[in-house]
Amino acid sequence: MEKNIAVIWGDCSSPEIVKQTIRVLDKIAEKYGHTFHYTDAAMGGEAIDKYGDPLPQHELDKCLAADSVLLGAVGGPKWEGLPGEQRPEKGLLRLRAGMGLYSNNRPAKIWPQLAPASPLKPEIVAQGIDFIIVRELIGGVYFGDHETHTLENGEKQAIDSMPYSEHEIERIGRIGFETARKRRKKLCCVDKANVLDTSRLWRAVMHRLQAEYPDVEYSEMFVDNCAMQIVKNPAQFDVIVTENMFGDILSDEASMITGSIGMIPSSSLGDGTRGLYEPIHGSAPDIAGKDIVNPTACILSAAMMLRYSFGLTEEADAIENAVNKVLDKGIRTADNMSDGCTCVGCTGMGDAILAEI
Amino acid sequence: MEKNIAVIWGDCSSPEIVKQTIRVLDKIAEKYGHTFHYTDAAMGGEAIDKYGDPLPQHELDKCLAADSVLLGAVGGPKWEGLPGEQRPEKGLLRLRAGMGLYSNNRPAKIWPQLAPASPLKPEIVAQGIDFIIVRELIGGVYFGDHETHTLENGEKQAIDSMPYSEHEIERIGRIGFETARKRRKKLCCVDKANVLDTSRLWRAVMHRLQAEYPDVEYSEMFVDNCAMQIVKNPAQFDVIVTENMFGDILSDEASMITGSIGMIPSSSLGDGTRGLYEPIHGSAPDIAGKDIVNPTACILSAAMMLRYSFGLTEEADAIENAVNKVLDKGIRTADNMSDGCTCVGCTGMGDAILAEI
Ligand SMILES: CC(C)[C@H](C(=O)O)[C@@H](O)C(=O)O
Ligand SMILES: CC(C)[C@H](C(=O)O)[C@@H](O)C(=O)O
Repeated sequence: MEKNIAVIWGDCSSPEIVKQTIRVLDKIAEKYGHTFHYTDAAMGGEAIDKYGDPLPQHELDKCLAADSVLLGAVGGPKWEGLPGEQRPEKGLLRLRAGMGLYSNNRPAKIWPQLAPASPLKPEIVAQGIDFIIVRELIGGVYFGDHETHTLENGEKQAIDSMPYSEHEIERIGRIGFETARKRRKKLCCVDKANVLDTSRLWRAVMHRLQAEYPDVEYSEMFVDNCAMQIVKNPAQFDVIVTENMFGDILSDEASMITGSIGMIPSSSLGDGTRGLYEPIHGSAPDIAGKDIVNPTACILSAAMMLRYSFGLTEEADAIENAVNKVLDKGIRTADNMSDGCTCVGCTGMGDAILAEI
Repeated sequence: MEKNIAVIWGDCSSPEIVKQTIRVLDKIAEKYGHTFHYTDAAMGGEAIDKYGDPLPQHELDKCLAADSVLLGAVGGPKWEGLPGEQRPEKGLLRLRAGMGLYSNNRPAKIWPQLAPASPLKPEIVAQGIDFIIVRELIGGVYFGDHETHTLENGEKQAIDSMPYSEHEIERIGRIGFETARKRRKKLCCVDKANVLDTSRLWRAVMHRLQAEYPDVEYSEMFVDNCAMQIVKNPAQFDVIVTENMFGDILSDEASMITGSIGMIPSSSLGDGTRGLYEPIHGSAPDIAGKDIVNPTACILSAAMMLRYSFGLTEEADAIENAVNKVLDKGIRTADNMSDGCTCVGCTGMGDAILAEI
């Protein structure tokens, strides 16, 4: 198989993890007889520095021309003072919208070897943490109108608006049901239907879809309650589907309870097979250049790319199994260190995973 | 001292906890020589049943005429099918707005006796959990325009809008700084300034206020990160100030990590001393009428009323100390039971607290 991958190296410590990920992809290509072509695309801080724009059209075009996009993480203190439109995050938001990636898939799964690192009590962890948050990614308050104006009395007022239309809800709702169908067949729609019109429209659409998926157990939960339940009883969840802002908050909370943010990949997909794959962690500016950042989440994101964009199941399994074996051997980066384990750097973790493939 | 208290008995198991709270208030009145007059006001399900409206003007007027308002909790399955405007929650939102209660104060504090009930690991709990979320309560997306219309292509679209003006931010920001000043002098403003105009206006106003409070250590955090930090390292927080919707989500998460939602009171205040005091838990329909619901959060809410609305510090201390002694004696309601403790019902817990005052 021959595939074109656009690579966004990202900022701060991100190029270090992307480098290890490319090594892993190359090894997979070699072992299974594929060819991966890489095209560098600049987005975020790098693009601001080069072009004065966090995502120039020519860089977005490179992503659109590729079969899929691999991303590290963008942003850092250097660009924090910039006005909204010129910040690294804006590049990410425009990339998501430009590629039509409405479905963000964030697994919250505990690696048994790392279970002691969870901030939750062992009794709760023992019940199992293995759910997915399906987050709507290009609608809602992220992409509604934002305005700041001066009122008659002279004071400023800002208004952010949160729009959702039926087709936007339906397509992500369907992903929720389909994802549940491939798993333990439980879908929970999280919203604030006691306050928001968008949530009520969301529920109406979900109820229509529900009729098409009688094999999936469907439930609804308010977002405030969900923020509690994720901590109290995460084992109850299989798939959560929710709007953009709630998904942002809940998926970060969910990733934290696994105890190892440096291990969590994510995929963002639209209607075709072209996706954006990135770790859920940030660009870790404080440890940039030290070869200590954990490349595993980025490497597992590449595995998701093989699985979901290229249909290469065996190859994806090979990467995930390699990670599992490395953990079994007690090899850890600093963020996951515990007594009796061997601490390696970013390159060392890359080496260890490569050795197992 | 003579005070008029409007009492909203609430729905489902709520009247049971309010009843115990009135007993405690009467005992305080007797012991310290005060007179509390109670006026029943209907809001929520009760008001819907009586008047077909979750908060008729005449009931709001009773609250406005009182020196303060005590509330149990409203809502229940009986009223869930009703349209938005007629639901119990709408009564609560209209009560908050009608009384001008812009500042909701939700403490997240672990009672040492109940620390084992926290879902967090003992190592994390041992570092201390004692912070307050100051939530803006009558602005933002809760009170912006909500509309659902049909687009040209025939599909429905809903839009919720989230407005904030400078004076709304300034008055709650000031409460945040003042609250921090009376505590460990750390204030964290939580927002999503990388996406929302309202958050950016929020930060601008907070920066102006910061100059007036040089003794308070001020910081800013994105809401998604905060949802992680509350689980990972709650000891870092002293006071969090945030907008309505974020406050709803984060304060529920924060209450859960204390392990005992049945113990957490809240106050909502505006410009004067008249406030609304209520437990943060719901109306617990599943255990209504069984005399097993925990009345402590409601009783502690009454203590907050004495302290913040009536300035009765000694009396408030008396209630809080009584609760502490009851816990020390190992007396628990079912929600907090653990080995070696004595399980009592709602009335039993009221008796136990009364006995210690
Ligand atoms: C950087 C930021 C705009 C982004 C978001 O809020 O979507 C990030 O938090 C994420 O979750 O990918
Ligand atoms: C009932 C609901 C409208 C309310 C809110 O969201 O404010 C509740 O969750 C709360 O936090 O008091």
